[in-house]
Parts: sequence; structure tokens; C-alpha cells
Amino acid sequence: MTISNRLTEVLGIEHPVLLAPMDDVACGRLAAAVSNAGGLGLLGGGYGRADWLASERHAAGNARIGCGFITWSLAKQPALLDQALAHRPAAIMLSFGDPAPFAPAIRAAGSRLICQVQTVAQAREAAAAGADVLVAQGTEAGGHGLGIPLNTLLPLVVEACPQIPVAAAGGVADGRGLAAAMMFGAEGVLMGTRFYATEEAAAHPEAKRRILAAGAGETMRSIVFDITRRNVWPGGYTGRVLRNAHAERWLGREDELQLAAEQVNRDYLAARERGDFDVAAVIAGEAAALIHDLPPAGEIVRRVVAEAEAALTAPRGIV
Amino acid sequence: MTISNRLTEVLGIEHPVLLAPMDDVACGRLAAAVSNAGGLGLLGGGYGRADWLASERHAAGNARIGCGFITWSLAKQPALLDQALAHRPAAIMLSFGDPAPFAPAIRAAGSRLICQVQTVAQAREAAAAGADVLVAQGTEAGGHGLGIPLNTLLPLVVEACPQIPVAAAGGVADGRGLAAAMMFGAEGVLMGTRFYATEEAAAHPEAKRRILAAGAGETMRSIVFDITRRNVWPGGYTGRVLRNAHAERWLGREDELQLAAEQVNRDYLAARERGDFDVAAVIAGEAAALIHDLPPAGEIVRRVVAEAEAALTAPRGIV
Repeated sequence: MTISNRLTEVLGIEHPVLLAPMDDVACGRLAAAVSNAGGLGLLGGGYGRADWLASERHAAGNARIGCGFITWSLAKQPALLDQALAHRPAAIMLSFGDPAPFAPAIRAAGSRLICQVQTVAQAREAAAAGADVLVAQGTEAGGHGLGIPLNTLLPLVVEACPQIPVAAAGGVADGRGLAAAMMFGAEGVLMGTRFYATEEAAAHPEAKRRILAAGAGETMRSIVFDITRRNVWPGGYTGRVLRNAHAERWLGREDELQLAAEQVNRDYLAARERGDFDVAAVIAGEAAALIHDLPPAGEIVRRVVAEAEAALTAPRGIV
Repeated sequence: MTISNRLTEVLGIEHPVLLAPMDDVACGRLAAAVSNAGGLGLLGGGYGRADWLASERHAAGNARIGCGFITWSLAKQPALLDQALAHRPAAIMLSFGDPAPFAPAIRAAGSRLICQVQTVAQAREAAAAGADVLVAQGTEAGGHGLGIPLNTLLPLVVEACPQIPVAAAGGVADGRGLAAAMMFGAEGVLMGTRFYATEEAAAHPEAKRRILAAGAGETMRSIVFDITRRNVWPGGYTGRVLRNAHAERWLGREDELQLAAEQVNRDYLAARERGDFDVAAVIAGEAAALIHDLPPAGEIVRRVVAEAEAALTAPRGIV
């Protein structure tokens, strides 16, 4: 049993469940596990490191996976796209920037182009660039993003681009979320935080533990984390992380943090080194509140589809 | 055709669509229109004014409506509850405070108790106080609220209180939103902004026009508006309004605004008087991005149910 639609067809997958290409965390082992369970695993190409990409593509074995990049960072080192395409990935996912310059090479390599968008204008831009799949990423999502909630963004993206299948991202952790997204016209989901809390994810055990422990409202979206890491993003984008002592300390004091950034950055790197997540950030979304276990990733894929089917077919009192 | 479930049964209504008791805006005429179309209209008792309540209850005629209050404000003038109960309302809705002190009188009067909650802890508190219906209000909602998005809060409230029917609020403007909420286990919706943009709502035509014009991401949650109005709320609550020049000017400068509040408040009141919504706030939620027309409220009720049925019964490719 599964859900079969334009999204599964265009991506050539069994289940409409995509792994968010989380920088570092979405490793070859995790991507392979998601793909081997019938979803689509996407390597977390992130800012782009050739050695990481090579080793994680190798770790994924023969699994049919894809790879995601931060578009504005990829633009600085476009050879990485060629490296990724050499392995004939099922899809390339681009987020945070204009996908148009990369679309021809992706198409020519026979890969699908997935574009993640945070606004309706970006959705139209991605459609014009020839996106095969759109991911509407609501503000609930972990990591970088913008401020529009999924239940507004998703229906607007679906309306703006009816010809392209849309996956929903942000706050989705289970089959209820997939079923709900489908009511807005989505045909699948892309999940990050849910797959972070799996056996295969390349992350510190304490970071995973904190995702399991987090309750509702225990994440925040800000630029504290980027200032701390001395990681300069294009204006407007913020990052969602689990609230911790460091984030609480600097939220609302970003100007002051800028001035102290050199020392703070040294302390931050040391804290990350020793696994101190009162200082180091766990990059996770609001879905953390819905996550209570640490299963193999394949089980998540199967569970989400079964839960969605149960929700979609439950009696709803229509009389 | 309609959706019949525990929510419609306990409230004695035909359609699981509730009018948010927006302070001032949810007048007798609007509440009556929603109830007469088969939903449940709730007067916007808000902070509580005896004369307003009396005249709006009168304006609602024989319609079977309810009334909503801001709980912490009602606690300062509990006689208002007796006034409301004297009309044998279908329900009393309480938000923002402990409902327990008021529950016995509501029950004794034969009214149903609807409790709006912004956290899971509040949902448990409301359940313990004997709530007949819970409204899970996500951060997308207009007006006062907290920071948890609906797609996290709603499933958690449903899980925490399976014995009580739950309505979803925040970002809901149409039948897709109702259908999606049902996937999380909700049995209905409560809508504010959608009903603000109707013929009957007691609001300035320019305020309604701005809701129609607002796109995604054009609202903000802050305390700018409360400081400006010299309106002191319990700690933690923020208010969502349409972004305008005044809000942009003071966001992030709340301390400075406190110091200037006397003059700013005078200017604000004058601006409101002359219908200048570059300064005066339009209290509306993210659902504004989904709203493009200004129909009679009854049409909204019928439309939401028809759209929800269409979404719930559409083929979803389950194979």
C-alpha cells in the first residue's frame, strides 16, 4: 500500500516522502536508508565540500539517491554540481537562490530538479526555471528559512504552480502531517528534523536526544546562530534551532553579538567540539515536539505512509 | 451535506465552523449571520463592556449564538458573565487565563464551555476545568496568542485531550484548512480574519480592504500594538496584526516605544479616529493571504464546508 501521484511518478519513487538535505546530517547512510525504504534520500550537500560529497556518495552504495545544495553557495563553486551529476543522481534539490543557472546541466544529466521555496514569488521563479518538483518550506522548518507558515504558503504555492507537484516542509513529522498537506494540494512531504532523529543520521547522540526531549515552542528562528558561526547569509533568511542557553542569551542582542563575534565564535567552536549543546546549536524545527523516538529511517518512511493512509481514509462524518 | 461529529453535536450546530469572538469586530449582526448559516457565532465580548454586550446581543435577534471573553479581563468584572448567561447563550468561549472559576456558572446556565488554548498545558488545564470544546490556536492567528504553530499544537492538543472535541484556529480561511485540521484530529475550525472580511463584520472598510490586499508574510506578532494602545497583557502574549508603517517603525524598539508611549498613544488614537491604518492596527492573522473577497458571512460557512468535503473526498492516489 502506498500513495501514488505526480510526485512519486516524476521522482520515480514508491512513497512521497523526501529526506531534507540537511547539511552534514543527511549523510550517505541516511539518504540510502530513506531511498531503500521507497522514499527519496537527498545528501546534505549544503554549502558544498567536495570530499564530503565523494565519501557520502560512496557510503550510500548503490542506493538511488539525490543531492541538495544551498544555491547561493553552490554558485561560488559550480564544479560541485558536475561532481554530483557524475553519479547520475535521481534529483538535485536547490534552495535559497536562483536555480535558473543550474537547471540546464541538471536536465541534461537526466536528473530531476527539486526547488525549495519560501515565498510564492520564489515558486514562480522556480517554475520558470523548469523545476520538476517544488518544496514549499514553511517557517516551522528547522535551519534556514523565512517567516511564512506552511498552512498559508502551501496552498498559495499549489495555486500558483498547478502544473508542478509540490511537497510540504516545515513542522511535518508523521503521516498526519502528510495527510494534512495533501488537503492543501501537496503530493508529498520533505522532512528534516524527523530524519535527524533516526539511527542513521550523522549527528551527535546528545543532539538527537535533545530533539526527542524538545516540547512545543522550544525552537526559535533568528540570526543568532549565523552570527555566532560567522556564517553570512543573504539578507532576510533566519535559522531555526532548538532554544538553548546560548540562543536565549543573545536573542534580541544581535548587534552586541556582532561586536563580540570573534570571542563568541571561538567559544562556540570549542563547545561544539565537546558536544556542549547548551552553546552549540541543534538545527531542528518545530516538528521536534512531535518526535519521541529514534528508529531506523526506513521505519519512518513506512510509518508516515501508513499513518497518512489511516488519516485519509478515516470516517469524517460527512453526511 | 455537512460534516457531523462530536463538535457539532456538543455545540448543537449543523456545520463545524465557529466565529472567533474578535473584540468589537464580532458584532451581533456577524454572530447571527454565522449561526443562521449553521455555524456558531460568538460575540466578541473581549475585555468586556456591558453596554456593547447588551446592544450586540439585541442586534443578533433570535439567533442562537454564544459569547467570548478574555478570561483575565473577565476576572476583573465577573458580573459580565452573568449578563451574558442571562441570554442563555449556546456557549461561552474563554481565552487567555484560567477558566476554572467561571466553569460552574456556565455549566449551571446550560451553556457549553469552549476554551481556547495556546499550549498543551493550557489544554490540560481547560480539560480539568470541564471544557466541552477546545480551540487550539496556532501562532498564525490574528490578535493575541503565543508562538506555537498550528501544525504542532493541534496534534498535541488532540493527543492530550482525546475525550474533548477540538477546533483549530490560526491560518484557517477555507475548507482546505478545515480538511487539513481534521487530518490532525480536529473536528472543526474557528476563524477570525476570514469573518473579519465579510459584509457583516463591524470594522472600518479600509481595514477590510487591507486584509484583502495582504499577501503571505505580511503580518507580524509583537507587543508593539499593546504598548501603543497602553494595553497591558500578562507576560508572554503577543498580538498579530497586519504589518504597517507604525509596526515596522517600532518593531525591535519596544523599550524606546515604552518611553514614548504617551505621545505615541495620542497619535495612535487620532489615527484610528481618522481611519489611518498606516498607524492604526488591523488585527488580523496570516490567513489574510488566503482571503480575496468580502462576501456575506453565511456564504463563508457554506463555502468552507463544501470545500472541505471536496478535499476530504478527492482521490488521493492510495494504491
